[in-house]
Amino acid sequence: MPQHQIPDHMTAIVLDSYSGVEALRVEQHPVPKPGNNEVLIKVAATSINPSDLAFLEGLYGFQKPTPIVPGFEGSGTVVGVGSSMMGRYLKGKRVACVSQDKGDGVWAEYMVTPTNFALPLDKSVSLEQGAMSIVNPLTAIAFLTMAKKDGHNVIINTASASALGQMVNRLGLSEGIQVINIVRRDTQVDLLKRQSAEIVLDSSEPNFDQQLHDVCHQRKVRLAFDAVAGPMTMQLLEAMPAHSKVTVYGGLSNEPAQAQPGHLIFQNKAVDGFWLTSWLAKKNFMQKLMLWRRAQKMLSTELKCEIRAKYPLQDAKKAVKDYQSQMTGGKVLFVPER
Amino acid sequence: MPQHQIPDHMTAIVLDSYSGVEALRVEQHPVPKPGNNEVLIKVAATSINPSDLAFLEGLYGFQKPTPIVPGFEGSGTVVGVGSSMMGRYLKGKRVACVSQDKGDGVWAEYMVTPTNFALPLDKSVSLEQGAMSIVNPLTAIAFLTMAKKDGHNVIINTASASALGQMVNRLGLSEGIQVINIVRRDTQVDLLKRQSAEIVLDSSEPNFDQQLHDVCHQRKVRLAFDAVAGPMTMQLLEAMPAHSKVTVYGGLSNEPAQAQPGHLIFQNKAVDGFWLTSWLAKKNFMQKLMLWRRAQKMLSTELKCEIRAKYPLQDAKKAVKDYQSQMTGGKVLFVPER
Repeated sequence: MPQHQIPDHMTAIVLDSYSGVEALRVEQHPVPKPGNNEVLIKVAATSINPSDLAFLEGLYGFQKPTPIVPGFEGSGTVVGVGSSMMGRYLKGKRVACVSQDKGDGVWAEYMVTPTNFALPLDKSVSLEQGAMSIVNPLTAIAFLTMAKKDGHNVIINTASASALGQMVNRLGLSEGIQVINIVRRDTQVDLLKRQSAEIVLDSSEPNFDQQLHDVCHQRKVRLAFDAVAGPMTMQLLEAMPAHSKVTVYGGLSNEPAQAQPGHLIFQNKAVDGFWLTSWLAKKNFMQKLMLWRRAQKMLSTELKCEIRAKYPLQDAKKAVKDYQSQMTGGKVLFVPER
Repeated sequence: MPQHQIPDHMTAIVLDSYSGVEALRVEQHPVPKPGNNEVLIKVAATSINPSDLAFLEGLYGFQKPTPIVPGFEGSGTVVGVGSSMMGRYLKGKRVACVSQDKGDGVWAEYMVTPTNFALPLDKSVSLEQGAMSIVNPLTAIAFLTMAKKDGHNVIINTASASALGQMVNRLGLSEGIQVINIVRRDTQVDLLKRQSAEIVLDSSEPNFDQQLHDVCHQRKVRLAFDAVAGPMTMQLLEAMPAHSKVTVYGGLSNEPAQAQPGHLIFQNKAVDGFWLTSWLAKKNFMQKLMLWRRAQKMLSTELKCEIRAKYPLQDAKKAVKDYQSQMTGGKVLFVPER
């Protein structure tokens, strides 16, 4: 690979304050320099995830000092490295990457991140696929792994028409874990059905609660993954038999998760949460490597994700608004110009 | 003890439908007969607990077919037994008793219950104390036991001015588990302070959230027992540091328990529930016996409960309304006439 000429400055998207998409602007920044255990990545593509939307609003698990470059996930080529062994190994390689919990993210032409936040891509995986290969794929794998570990052969997922929801459904089908898919609009039912989903329930249907109750009791469903929260959490607890749990991983309703005291007290039901970062933190290096290999092998099948639109960094607000307007229609990527 | 003459009929309080105190009436019933593994108890005193109020409203863990005699807890003398060994052992003994989950409860002159729902009283314990010796005392012991088992040396309790709340505070003091007491009115702060409570927070104070946050972070409080639910559950989760849990055991707010998705997801916080019946069901016979002995020893000290009023069964509605009007001022008992 020819030596890459690293410019002094780059285009970057910047968030001025935690007040959402309107606080985004595009500006020229100095290209950052990698420290000892870091790599400099020339970004090829970077995705917009629900976690990014939460970050823009200040609702993510942490806030970084503003102004800050957002963006948790992307892909690119390692063009600069610190002095570490791992850095030298990564030099010139195509990688998927996530941003660190301090400092700038990946919505820019270049990003610096720790060496262990850059994962070499298989030859079979394109850079655009690579830009969507960590957050959703590993979350889908995590859900199925958690279900199996606790002996569940059937689970519920909400917001099932999302990119993640579709992955969970397909991965469940291939791994023999039945997924009860809950969507919020009737038009989303077909989307899942076309992907061989056996059970898709539309929460906007008037008899949704009864349908959910029946299927939960027939199939003894005791674990639900919930991206919606608000009253949905309570509906899930209500529908499932005793000794059930709702694991909240999103707050699309913009309301607190709710639970009837009677369900918690008398039926031994519970509510907890899932964060990929916490889940991965409990894995050792080899376990993470295995997960990463598994995810890459399925990027064209179970963990495939359609790309709906690509934007240059200059169109920051437009791209984020486009994604917000239709989060179930495929991924929206930033593709910095070459 | 002279042979007790068992009459054919008795006075009993009857609930017609699950619509609260107004659905109570008093009538004459045939005195029930004990089956093989049952005892007939001549009731000396029977308490009104929050769980009874929930039962009257149909909000308890189960509903029995109506009309039904309510009442979960009482005391009396075993005057009739089935053919079991245990029954014969109990004959003539003073017992504390709870009602079974099927059939009539203890708000009557006589009650039939399984032999293992009748616990012989120590000589030191009066029948009136005995009528309040199971539900609250064993719940207080359960809370402290759960806290110790999970390595907590400080816990939160809400509705701390209740009979149970006072017991939890005193038991915590004697067992070296610090209790952060939360009450809902400023007049209740003194009640707890007089019982040596170090920390009592009034949730009606404007700076309650900040006070709670500060004490939770200073003392690393990660377990809260919550009788209130609604927004209180969310306030508790908000105030406690990461990896905390709220265990709901009541719903005094009459609202669903709430939890911010961000707390569940990013801070590994969780909500579950506590029911004494479930907790005891996991204990073997010897463990239950030990718990019962421990509870009785503390009925005049840590687990003491003041009696605020006594009513004959005829005053069913009046007694329940009196209890409802001031649940923190001491227990209200029914004392059937001799």
